[in-house]
Amino acid sequence: MINFLDLAGTFVFAVSGTHTAMQKRFDLFGALFIGFVTAVGGGTLRDILIGSTPVSWMKDIHYFYIIVAAVIFTIVFRKFVQKLRTTLFLFDTIGIGVFTVIGLEKALQIGIPIPMAIMMGVASAVAGGILRDVFSNEIPLIFHKEIYATACFAGGVLFVILYKFTPLSESFNVLSTIVVIITIRLLSVRLNWSLPRLSKYENHGD
Amino acid sequence: MINFLDLAGTFVFAVSGTHTAMQKRFDLFGALFIGFVTAVGGGTLRDILIGSTPVSWMKDIHYFYIIVAAVIFTIVFRKFVQKLRTTLFLFDTIGIGVFTVIGLEKALQIGIPIPMAIMMGVASAVAGGILRDVFSNEIPLIFHKEIYATACFAGGVLFVILYKFTPLSESFNVLSTIVVIITIRLLSVRLNWSLPRLSKYENHGD
Amino acid sequence: MINFLDLAGTFVFAVSGTHTAMQKRFDLFGALFIGFVTAVGGGTLRDILIGSTPVSWMKDIHYFYIIVAAVIFTIVFRKFVQKLRTTLFLFDTIGIGVFTVIGLEKALQIGIPIPMAIMMGVASAVAGGILRDVFSNEIPLIFHKEIYATACFAGGVLFVILYKFTPLSESFNVLSTIVVIITIRLLSVRLNWSLPRLSKYENHGD
Repeated sequence: MINFLDLAGTFVFAVSGTHTAMQKRFDLFGALFIGFVTAVGGGTLRDILIGSTPVSWMKDIHYFYIIVAAVIFTIVFRKFVQKLRTTLFLFDTIGIGVFTVIGLEKALQIGIPIPMAIMMGVASAVAGGILRDVFSNEIPLIFHKEIYATACFAGGVLFVILYKFTPLSESFNVLSTIVVIITIRLLSVRLNWSLPRLSKYENHGD
Repeated sequence: MINFLDLAGTFVFAVSGTHTAMQKRFDLFGALFIGFVTAVGGGTLRDILIGSTPVSWMKDIHYFYIIVAAVIFTIVFRKFVQKLRTTLFLFDTIGIGVFTVIGLEKALQIGIPIPMAIMMGVASAVAGGILRDVFSNEIPLIFHKEIYATACFAGGVLFVILYKFTPLSESFNVLSTIVVIITIRLLSVRLNWSLPRLSKYENHGD
Repeated sequence: MINFLDLAGTFVFAVSGTHTAMQKRFDLFGALFIGFVTAVGGGTLRDILIGSTPVSWMKDIHYFYIIVAAVIFTIVFRKFVQKLRTTLFLFDTIGIGVFTVIGLEKALQIGIPIPMAIMMGVASAVAGGILRDVFSNEIPLIFHKEIYATACFAGGVLFVILYKFTPLSESFNVLSTIVVIITIRLLSVRLNWSLPRLSKYENHGD
């Protein structure tokens, strides 16, 4: 189940990367590169930082096919993909939920202190999107828009609390965490929440 | 032989990085940094992803001297280097051929699935140039120009076919792969090939 | 003592990252991300390249609290932080001194050749600031301004000389290295030293 959601999330992240590549008018190689970076960037960062190498997506060929399929699908069916926006948004949100939990669990397993482990979960979820923007020469979107990392963070805190202080099963914990992340993000988009942007040091008129 | 070509490729990649640093008017430190990143970026990514650390260039002092020499050479003899464009282009092309093969072989040796291993070969060859552009705050050139990664990819596929399905010697396989990569790239430049740029989602007039 | 300076340097680096995030008008998440990257980027690069994982800051919870505190402190007391510029500059300079020595020692311990080890020391000190600028979509400041890496390099060379050719104690070596780095940087700012910027290949009027 986690595995299915992981692959679904990977697919959607690769679609999002390809979308960016198309807006930048990259060629097929550029789209594949950005698609890969977006889809596996978070997991790669996580695995490299905790020293779990070769990184996970290199050992499992499914990721490769899923990402290549996502890139080609997005390019070929661009108009159709446009119409799927809501569905994609939903899967993207499921994706960050799943990636947060996977990253968090991996970090806890090797004994990383809890606050760091939560951070590792958030990083697993958001680093792909950050790298997508850096490689496309853009300021990362999530540095100034949307409750995204915040939803992952809240989910991560919940997961740790459930995991440490309740006798509930892992499946239940995973599921509630993902549901909470999805709920926060959906609410934030619906109600137009965002973190306040920081003002500059100097305050003349902006 | 591979070793000589590896060092020659490293030299040329460092020259290319220094060239970019000079166009951006960085100082000597900037040129050294960009020179290093361009020259060892691909191999570093490869080694980190597959978990072969300390990364290879840190264990072999030759790379260090080659790169420092390349940076200084490019700065001091800038007019001369300008005239060497064709020679440098040739060595750069040899470089990506050699780096593709080295990356591919390393990945196959540790049991990475074949499609991933080819990708690792391509990444070894092109990541240096991508990082050069990211650190210089430019959109990576190879996302929208030239058959570059594609040549590496074709070479990688050929190498795997020769390696798996023929009794030919490794030297022969390596050499043919490099020759094919060089041929594709030279042809692509000569005949002005490139991958089509992707259009945006919205199609009004561009 | 080293440990205290390490944490002080981490704090100041996180302040510097938050400062950049505020100027870019990122939100709280953006500030935390850039704060972290600036503070632990150098050490992370060092640990990943030499294969010392999980990276050091993930095993020691102090870094986490120090960085979060620095980010919040900078945002809440922005006017006060403005006035602390000189103090912060001093700690930043101490920070690069300490980070250079730590990186250098770690590299020497695992048998990295000396020139590489010095480079590793410099990279530990400056990579955080470079990544801060890359993630903020800016050309890294130190590629074209100030004697910064150069001071670290000079300190690194001195440290190796003391370490290899004198019977002096480690504490003495560390301290002299840090003092030299600080002196060079203070002098360079005071006397307005900088490395000459490289000219472009073409020379018409700039």
